[in-house]
Amino acid sequence: VQKTWAISGVDLHLDLHGTRVRAALEIALRDAVTTGRLAAGTRLPSTRALAADLGLARNTVAEAYGQLVAEGWLTARAGSGTRVAGRASPEGRASRGVAARSPVPPGGGPPPAARFDLRPGSPDVSAFPRAAWLSAARRALGGAPFSALDYGDPRGRIELRAELAGYLSRARGLRTSADRIVVCTGFAQALAVLCAALRGRGLARLAVERYGLPSVWETARAAGIETAWLDVDGDGAVIEALPSAGAVLLTPAHQFPLGVALSARRRAAIVAWAQAADGWVIEDDYDGEFRYDRHPLGAVQGLDPERVVYAGTASKTLAPGLRLAWLALPGALVDDVMAAKVLADRQSSAIDQLTLAELIRSGAYDRHVRRSRLTYRRRRDRLISSVPSPVRVSGIAAGLHALVELPVGVTEAEVVADGAARGLALEGLGAYAATAHDHGQALVVGYAKPPEHAFTGALARLVAVLSSG
Amino acid sequence: VQKTWAISGVDLHLDLHGTRVRAALEIALRDAVTTGRLAAGTRLPSTRALAADLGLARNTVAEAYGQLVAEGWLTARAGSGTRVAGRASPEGRASRGVAARSPVPPGGGPPPAARFDLRPGSPDVSAFPRAAWLSAARRALGGAPFSALDYGDPRGRIELRAELAGYLSRARGLRTSADRIVVCTGFAQALAVLCAALRGRGLARLAVERYGLPSVWETARAAGIETAWLDVDGDGAVIEALPSAGAVLLTPAHQFPLGVALSARRRAAIVAWAQAADGWVIEDDYDGEFRYDRHPLGAVQGLDPERVVYAGTASKTLAPGLRLAWLALPGALVDDVMAAKVLADRQSSAIDQLTLAELIRSGAYDRHVRRSRLTYRRRRDRLISSVPSPVRVSGIAAGLHALVELPVGVTEAEVVADGAARGLALEGLGAYAATAHDHGQALVVGYAKPPEHAFTGALARLVAVLSSG
Repeated sequence: VQKTWAISGVDLHLDLHGTRVRAALEIALRDAVTTGRLAAGTRLPSTRALAADLGLARNTVAEAYGQLVAEGWLTARAGSGTRVAGRASPEGRASRGVAARSPVPPGGGPPPAARFDLRPGSPDVSAFPRAAWLSAARRALGGAPFSALDYGDPRGRIELRAELAGYLSRARGLRTSADRIVVCTGFAQALAVLCAALRGRGLARLAVERYGLPSVWETARAAGIETAWLDVDGDGAVIEALPSAGAVLLTPAHQFPLGVALSARRRAAIVAWAQAADGWVIEDDYDGEFRYDRHPLGAVQGLDPERVVYAGTASKTLAPGLRLAWLALPGALVDDVMAAKVLADRQSSAIDQLTLAELIRSGAYDRHVRRSRLTYRRRRDRLISSVPSPVRVSGIAAGLHALVELPVGVTEAEVVADGAARGLALEGLGAYAATAHDHGQALVVGYAKPPEHAFTGALARLVAVLSSG
Repeated sequence: VQKTWAISGVDLHLDLHGTRVRAALEIALRDAVTTGRLAAGTRLPSTRALAADLGLARNTVAEAYGQLVAEGWLTARAGSGTRVAGRASPEGRASRGVAARSPVPPGGGPPPAARFDLRPGSPDVSAFPRAAWLSAARRALGGAPFSALDYGDPRGRIELRAELAGYLSRARGLRTSADRIVVCTGFAQALAVLCAALRGRGLARLAVERYGLPSVWETARAAGIETAWLDVDGDGAVIEALPSAGAVLLTPAHQFPLGVALSARRRAAIVAWAQAADGWVIEDDYDGEFRYDRHPLGAVQGLDPERVVYAGTASKTLAPGLRLAWLALPGALVDDVMAAKVLADRQSSAIDQLTLAELIRSGAYDRHVRRSRLTYRRRRDRLISSVPSPVRVSGIAAGLHALVELPVGVTEAEVVADGAARGLALEGLGAYAATAHDHGQALVVGYAKPPEHAFTGALARLVAVLSSG
């Protein structure tokens, strides 16, 4: 396995083939210093940060640093970290009289990377259309007025909002217009500003599906909004038993994580509820672009644009790292959401917005989505045909993940641990249960995530895990 | 004047030379429809949105739309807005039983653009190094690992944090490291996540300079933090009379808007206060890169990295539309700020971060800052030598704005109105007063903002306004 990382913009390559990881790390660092690629004085990442980035034990990194310090390639100093040797660290005048303290490295950081990963949440980012993106960026930035780079409309660039209005109407059946769209830095922010706006209007309680993303519930609570739970059955969220709440958040196209679609009857019923109760429906259409076996199911928003808040994202169609998502709002909420967006960060990144607008305009966005849909459909078909009976795969009509239901007697914990031992990262359904995990033991398998070349290996390991159960 | 805007990604050009604005708008729209550039069914922006975008009266846009509807080029329908004629609007199945309602156009949007603008807050965005940015983006995206486009470290890309650690040390005398830097979507978000983190740790009160940015005070209050006011004199914020507060936010390099620098004595004193009182200093270094007449004054952060939170931004060095800013944090705050960033939007845009990292690494960032510094210094010198006595210009040692102090008897309101009548947008000091505006009448002149070709015209109008007082 070849790993690449960067220190001060210098790419370092680490050959982790074999077991001598520490030696490989020393070689990579020594090489970068001796060739001058890593300049004297450059500060290295903390051992904790580098270990997390590379998926190594912290001790391994600390030992490699220690060896290179002993050899004189690096210097280590309390309060100044580890640096490339050769000249004094740039402290100078500012350091007088201040006691040196060891920097406290933060907790967190990404978990050590497994070789294969079938956890849900990401598309195949290795398929991100870099050339098309760069070419769109060049055209977009070349044609944009100067003012596009200044402070501007908190809803986002008009070029993108206009393209999104057309795209969402065409691809998802929305009824909206550019002046009702607010571009956000990912769905997380979209939900945060929406919750802030709704809380400001008095919303106290939000009903959410009781299997879902914990970060969604946390966002609501951070805004001071209580959550109430909805059961989910084969027709999607059970809205007949709607708890008292001023708003409902649903994943109608492909329930996350269970994978069912909200039935037509319930789609109509939830809109009728919102109209009668003066309530709001929040439609999280995170993977609405990916449908496989059935006719396109338009967004619920089309049923009543004045009662349904639509949330879409480029995280699944392009890449989560873009941090681009959008809300299509009822007219009555536009001003409040704009005000919340101003408080959150004034507006989203102009260049990314202009580039996505140009990508949609040129047709490259639609082409990429079509291509991805074919790829993911093929992977889904392989998943279905590969799992050994009596394992059952459900939630397969759409999206980037499926539910792999384990036979009676097999637990998620066992299967996840078995996967980890084989270098395969897996996620159990229980991670998404807000209340009792009573659905039956299952894996939420994100079959879109691996790069194309790694999918076969990932699937083989999953099958091995499921067969050994 | 030529204006360009876009509908659904189609660029429209409006020649506003002469007085027949409405006719020009009709021509531009009719031309786009007849040539097919605007496809049948395309929804036009609301009259309000288009008027705001173009700086026209809403009636002018409404009349132009009306004329084209009468001519049959456009159709207008309640609930569906104004569209290019020629096919049915894409409502279909979704519209059954739903009452059509007029979309409510949002308030807000940018104010009508004056021909010249000397309000503070923005650099000359027409000088944004587009070619260098695009070329850095190409190199950065070409070299980045796939995982850079996935969910990642909430602090931001390691490539950028490593470059920033080096840059901030070199250019601003910071003592920090990549693991203590959190990249944010602009200063507004940086302050919002910092306030959320400090509030979570029990901070109830933040002392701020009583002349400053109202958005800063609003951000603190939105996080549940009370604000207390600090006077500002010729040595910067009067911290000797510090109100009881757990944290102090200062603009030490160049007080906004008064333009003074925090004296060395007070720099030391505020750090001593933080150490003794277990308090925090927040250093808003919004324009610290721009110093003209004196030796570089390093950031206060260098005096005590464990007590001073440093906030920097690319909004003044490159462009506000990038939405890139950074916090260099005391070790004790890293985890809490990371958690707040996760709630706010998980992480910032990866491609922008990778591109800025490459721009810094390649030296293009430093070159652009140096070039801008020379330009702005020249503009500042011209401003100083042009204003008629007895007008006084102060706050000139650094930054992108100066304080133009009006003679006794002349009010900000008169001067701003006179400027508006001459097509020059100006801002009075009173707009930045949190309490009584007792500093004397003055303008806060952002001399960096106009494009280079417009600076002479803007300055001539300012001089005319000041001479007629």
